[in-house]
Amino acid sequence: MNTVRFEPNTYHLTIGSHPPVMEIGDGDTVITSIVDAHGLDANERPVAPRGNPMTGPFFIRDAEPGDCLEVSIEQIRPNREFGWSRSTIAPGVLDPDFVGNVVGTGTAQYARWRVDVKQRNVTLADPVDTSIGAHTVAMRPMIGCFGVAPAFGQAISTATSAEHGGNMDYRGFTEGVIARFPIFVPGALFFLGDGHAAQGDGEIAGTGVEISCDVTFGVRLRKNVPMRWPGGENATHLFTVGNARPLDQALQHATTEMLFLLGSAYGLDERGAAILLGQSVEYDIANVFDPAYTVVCKVRKELLPSPPPQPGYTRTS
Amino acid sequence: MNTVRFEPNTYHLTIGSHPPVMEIGDGDTVITSIVDAHGLDANERPVAPRGNPMTGPFFIRDAEPGDCLEVSIEQIRPNREFGWSRSTIAPGVLDPDFVGNVVGTGTAQYARWRVDVKQRNVTLADPVDTSIGAHTVAMRPMIGCFGVAPAFGQAISTATSAEHGGNMDYRGFTEGVIARFPIFVPGALFFLGDGHAAQGDGEIAGTGVEISCDVTFGVRLRKNVPMRWPGGENATHLFTVGNARPLDQALQHATTEMLFLLGSAYGLDERGAAILLGQSVEYDIANVFDPAYTVVCKVRKELLPSPPPQPGYTRTS
Amino acid sequence: MNTVRFEPNTYHLTIGSHPPVMEIGDGDTVITSIVDAHGLDANERPVAPRGNPMTGPFFIRDAEPGDCLEVSIEQIRPNREFGWSRSTIAPGVLDPDFVGNVVGTGTAQYARWRVDVKQRNVTLADPVDTSIGAHTVAMRPMIGCFGVAPAFGQAISTATSAEHGGNMDYRGFTEGVIARFPIFVPGALFFLGDGHAAQGDGEIAGTGVEISCDVTFGVRLRKNVPMRWPGGENATHLFTVGNARPLDQALQHATTEMLFLLGSAYGLDERGAAILLGQSVEYDIANVFDPAYTVVCKVRKELLPSPPPQPGYTRTS
Amino acid sequence: MNTVRFEPNTYHLTIGSHPPVMEIGDGDTVITSIVDAHGLDANERPVAPRGNPMTGPFFIRDAEPGDCLEVSIEQIRPNREFGWSRSTIAPGVLDPDFVGNVVGTGTAQYARWRVDVKQRNVTLADPVDTSIGAHTVAMRPMIGCFGVAPAFGQAISTATSAEHGGNMDYRGFTEGVIARFPIFVPGALFFLGDGHAAQGDGEIAGTGVEISCDVTFGVRLRKNVPMRWPGGENATHLFTVGNARPLDQALQHATTEMLFLLGSAYGLDERGAAILLGQSVEYDIANVFDPAYTVVCKVRKELLPSPPPQPGYTRTS
Repeated sequence: MNTVRFEPNTYHLTIGSHPPVMEIGDGDTVITSIVDAHGLDANERPVAPRGNPMTGPFFIRDAEPGDCLEVSIEQIRPNREFGWSRSTIAPGVLDPDFVGNVVGTGTAQYARWRVDVKQRNVTLADPVDTSIGAHTVAMRPMIGCFGVAPAFGQAISTATSAEHGGNMDYRGFTEGVIARFPIFVPGALFFLGDGHAAQGDGEIAGTGVEISCDVTFGVRLRKNVPMRWPGGENATHLFTVGNARPLDQALQHATTEMLFLLGSAYGLDERGAAILLGQSVEYDIANVFDPAYTVVCKVRKELLPSPPPQPGYTRTS
Repeated sequence: MNTVRFEPNTYHLTIGSHPPVMEIGDGDTVITSIVDAHGLDANERPVAPRGNPMTGPFFIRDAEPGDCLEVSIEQIRPNREFGWSRSTIAPGVLDPDFVGNVVGTGTAQYARWRVDVKQRNVTLADPVDTSIGAHTVAMRPMIGCFGVAPAFGQAISTATSAEHGGNMDYRGFTEGVIARFPIFVPGALFFLGDGHAAQGDGEIAGTGVEISCDVTFGVRLRKNVPMRWPGGENATHLFTVGNARPLDQALQHATTEMLFLLGSAYGLDERGAAILLGQSVEYDIANVFDPAYTVVCKVRKELLPSPPPQPGYTRTS
Repeated sequence: MNTVRFEPNTYHLTIGSHPPVMEIGDGDTVITSIVDAHGLDANERPVAPRGNPMTGPFFIRDAEPGDCLEVSIEQIRPNREFGWSRSTIAPGVLDPDFVGNVVGTGTAQYARWRVDVKQRNVTLADPVDTSIGAHTVAMRPMIGCFGVAPAFGQAISTATSAEHGGNMDYRGFTEGVIARFPIFVPGALFFLGDGHAAQGDGEIAGTGVEISCDVTFGVRLRKNVPMRWPGGENATHLFTVGNARPLDQALQHATTEMLFLLGSAYGLDERGAAILLGQSVEYDIANVFDPAYTVVCKVRKELLPSPPPQPGYTRTS
Repeated sequence: MNTVRFEPNTYHLTIGSHPPVMEIGDGDTVITSIVDAHGLDANERPVAPRGNPMTGPFFIRDAEPGDCLEVSIEQIRPNREFGWSRSTIAPGVLDPDFVGNVVGTGTAQYARWRVDVKQRNVTLADPVDTSIGAHTVAMRPMIGCFGVAPAFGQAISTATSAEHGGNMDYRGFTEGVIARFPIFVPGALFFLGDGHAAQGDGEIAGTGVEISCDVTFGVRLRKNVPMRWPGGENATHLFTVGNARPLDQALQHATTEMLFLLGSAYGLDERGAAILLGQSVEYDIANVFDPAYTVVCKVRKELLPSPPPQPGYTRTS
């Protein structure tokens, strides 16, 4: 149950079986930092290549394929004053006939945002002369891209996501959340990066408010947990994550994984799970921009059978 | 500004240019009833054929193509004690490889629910011996299927939805909500039906808790409102609705319509709208079961420029 | 076994239970004409509204729901010299990021083609100064939109297609082909229209070479034939048709229907059908432009078990 | 212009920047062999792990990112007597409601085929008692999976495909075909494997007739060729390949690439290309089974402007 600090100086554009930067164990807490999607650090200096450069990987002692890595997101604190976003809607979320006629910009346009960590808000700093005018939204820092090394020696681009996690861009991966990942290689090899100070559902501008962050996370190792897709829980909900295109398939993955989870961890057979989910399931569209889209399937924890017969899937007090 | 009562005795399985049952005007309130998806009334008697039989149509005086029909859902009150749902997950929301191996029931299975209008909850009444055990969820009555006659003489099945509304199965169409529809034919011809006492996102069991209801709704006619898809607002959000398969296209329709709406009713150009939506848009997956899926694009009203320069899109006090 | 002539003077923009223009019987042959998608007749005069106006409906004597209507396309002869097409690629078949940057025309552009019925070719007549230069392709006349009245009183727009047929825009519905439709209403009510002198796969310009045509077709009534989707056969292949969005679902419908057909008409169980289809199935992408896309699933007739135990699915000599 | 032989003894389950097995140059011909998808060699011995183990990579001298690798498939000769296939239809190509009710096998089932290289046919050898009975189809040997190392250090599973090629499972990659790949890393690093003696469109059984093969291929290096997706040509057609899910997106990639190609190599502007493609494009559904589906966009070479102003995209005599 150690707390360790790690200052990154190498970054990765793929999530794969790269040499670990540090070994940690079940119960440890790590204090580190992540750069933004363009590789800009706390001083807005380019220290890594563009494309969601990752901090890590962290080798988790005793982790084996078939186990579950539980990552508790303790703190995500933007560590500089300004973040940036795109200021156009991604063509892929608009009616095709509309894209060519009206939007048709052809060049990426950006906006700059002032991030006030104390007031916990984010204010449009430039362009200030757009039709939206003065514009402030709540700061809700999140981790855009994190996950573990995939199976079979794959090295998967941090532009996309799959069973191992990756660039899920889910606004729900914020402070106070426990994320869970299936483990595919010895040591799990956990990566993280792509900080956002805020983001809408779907990441439909192609970015959140991108910013470097100081991050504190804890890890727990759960042995022999059957799972196929990432998931987790927050104060109110248990959730599973599906990553794929189109949205329909991402939703299929997330829903199927929830059905597995309700069975394996809560003892619900398919009919019981169907009765529960049919009237109470909730979905979030996490991202509809990246090569793989992300859909999150959620159930309010108060609706789950209690107590869950198997520890490991629920928050430890 | 009259309040009228209408007791239905004919029902329609398509939304089209059928003979109106009543003429009403801008500002009128209608008290009527809807049967459930199987045509069962307040006494669970079959009074209409299966497949979302509709009450109506109501002819709106002075309504012309190009206008907007605003329907204020004042009250949806289940008018009998028991509702029903399916108790299996629709195969289309599960991984195809999983469907054949594990679910494979082949026969529709149903559950019965006791609806307590005073306590505003819904309790599983049968099967009580399933793994879910005792199970109570909040009553949140909604209208599954409503809309206006489509253009070109089409008569569209109440199984599906399109620009005219229809079987959107959106849990957000509940009491206190204003729904808006583009008008395609003189008199608009408004239909409603398919009451649900509760429903999860996506209607992934293929039904909500299906029940007949007494419904009170008000209508306002907004002249010359450019809109292509249904929408509306509730206490906190402005929203637009896209109906199509796959989910990706439903989302494209809803997002494009929101972009139009932010421009036409709130004066936002595309870059301003992109800055707003990029960091603050919210999506609901309304249904992922019907022939057309439904995605809802939402923006918190407090984030909109104020005051809106054009009346008609916002709630009148 | 009569041959009758019918000269249309009313046209329909929906396929539904409209008053029949003529009653015909099993074995009859009809000589009639169809206007083009814009309602232009043999003299390029507008005689019907735009949007695939239909000739018909023809009432088939003794046809009942559950039967199959077999339409033999004997002749499709363009009856004027010039056809027209769009001369832009539909945005929906291009990468979304590409649409806004490069294409962005915003206005429909058209081309004019000279159709030489004797030489059986089609030559670009205007614009002649485009980069493609002189351009001649084979004439391959086809029926873009045809089908039978759908169930439940629906009236379905001739812009789209479904189980009843409709705007399938399949280049394979050409002379010498037998098309089959499930029957949903007494008399079947057969409609046809939307002549094309040529068309590529997918109808990706949004049109073929649109032209009015004289059409000769024969009808056969097959009693009690289990089928859910249109299909047919040509000289070499047996085929089934799926209409839906996205392409994946259209392919699912067509493949499932082929599996049914191989079972019901050729006695193949699922494993036998899987062995056949797995190594020999062929697919055509008929249209990827209309509200419902169309995929055709084909099997070479020489690979089918012979003789088929049930008549009705194979060409009568 | 050397002809070299290479006998593989290591295999890869990802396509990435692995150590090359041999360096070859522009104009060289390679005679080598590939094992089947399960890693079985000419003696049906397991010499490599399951999952499309690859022969290679071959380092192409002077190849740089931005160049095009042209692979001429001279010969694909099955080098053993028996191949295997699955004998069930993949659930993903069937209507979801149909999968659970009727198919529901839950276990992979296989068939065994005798491959007669001299007669050039493939005959079902087991099960012989299925409803399909005696069943022989033409041998049409193809390479299921081949391509070049992707960018950014990715190592992409041979289960799937992307811009670099990979598991496209296109029956059109057969003898006499030239395949073209964009080059992402110095030396290109070309891999190949996954031999099929026959396969239907879509690979809907999940396999072709899987078999090890002796393969002869030639390579040409084309410098500075703008291309984003694989493509090629055969005796009659020029083609481009899109790999993605859903089919709609694969088709978008292939069509957009064809538009680029018609512009860059044949001087067609967008309107000229639209006129050509609109009436004459052809599509193949290569695979609708793998994680990324594959659609091929084809144009008959006789319809192309001639002579092409830029060499490199057309067959050298």
